[in-house]
Amino acid sequence: MPASSPLLQQLIDALKVLPGVGPKTAQRMAFQLLERNREAGKKLGNALLNAMEHIGQCRCCRTFTEAELCAICSDDVRSQSPLLCVVGSSADLQAIEQTGQFDGRYFVLMGQLSPLDGIGPAELGLNVLEQQLAQGGIAELILATNPTVEGDATAYYIAELCHRHQVTVSRLAQGVPVGGELEYLDGSTLSHAFSGRKSF
Amino acid sequence: MPASSPLLQQLIDALKVLPGVGPKTAQRMAFQLLERNREAGKKLGNALLNAMEHIGQCRCCRTFTEAELCAICSDDVRSQSPLLCVVGSSADLQAIEQTGQFDGRYFVLMGQLSPLDGIGPAELGLNVLEQQLAQGGIAELILATNPTVEGDATAYYIAELCHRHQVTVSRLAQGVPVGGELEYLDGSTLSHAFSGRKSF
Ligand SMILES: [Zn+2]
Ligand SMILES: [Zn+2]
Repeated sequence: MPASSPLLQQLIDALKVLPGVGPKTAQRMAFQLLERNREAGKKLGNALLNAMEHIGQCRCCRTFTEAELCAICSDDVRSQSPLLCVVGSSADLQAIEQTGQFDGRYFVLMGQLSPLDGIGPAELGLNVLEQQLAQGGIAELILATNPTVEGDATAYYIAELCHRHQVTVSRLAQGVPVGGELEYLDGSTLSHAFSGRKSF
Repeated sequence: MPASSPLLQQLIDALKVLPGVGPKTAQRMAFQLLERNREAGKKLGNALLNAMEHIGQCRCCRTFTEAELCAICSDDVRSQSPLLCVVGSSADLQAIEQTGQFDGRYFVLMGQLSPLDGIGPAELGLNVLEQQLAQGGIAELILATNPTVEGDATAYYIAELCHRHQVTVSRLAQGVPVGGELEYLDGSTLSHAFSGRKSF
């Protein structure tokens, strides 16, 4: 009811930005919050503002965090691990953490190479990654990019950096379904892919 | 990643309050906003806070609005209509408006009688409705409550008020599927139910 309540219309429109939320679902969400749960609605509003405003990226691995260093990079043991796993997103990092199979450190690209979209090595922080490779202390870099065209191109680029710095590079076994997205895999497929990783 | 980012965890938890949003969907929503659309995330945050804070109910018909009177009750023609349609929620009002079949006024119960949950006539504003019936000017009250046990009980209660004030009362035709929820009906079923309404 656009005329009846501009604020309600604004809320419905704003909810449609969420993935998978169309006009009908947005309307239902708005009414349900207004009718039954205004406190939770305010809490969500504040959580959104806080998160959008204050969550940045870890100075070392680039994952989402409001701290300067994320929990893994602040961990004395994990941050010194000789294994570094490169992932495309914080969600992929999260999915691997949930398998409990990996106790090394990460580097989060926050994307993949896509020259047509203006996403080159600098946008993915690959200069920072190269500094880490140059510093030494990394015995093996594990590529866990998405098994897609862009993910593969990104993997090849990073493998090249590893060769240049004499760092062994491996890649998740092809238990990962081609064309799929890493964050949707079940934990056991991902575990198998991890332990079956091969030289790249 | 609870340890890595408390703000992210708070956002994911807060998103789960939305209907149909489980942990996995909430995580995906949070990451997508953080990665691609922080401005839209802030806009949604502000829209939620504004709506939860400022949207109240129309003094006359009880529908959601931030004004004292909603657009329909402020409309010189519609607010003087001899037809008054009683609905359970603002969403139901919205669904009927979208059929374009009805140009009278509304009364929004914001619920249905449910003594076990402490929802009696006063909670549904039925004292206000009775005042409107007593004032005169309503030739017919159309019951558009949900075709459920509670909706039926509510309809009978209101029909009783109408009889007391010599106001004709009708009810949506039983094109409405029994046990269903009004706001999910397609417009044409709802149109038929409207034009086929019968004396109650
Ligand atoms: Zn980190
Ligand atoms: Zn009104």
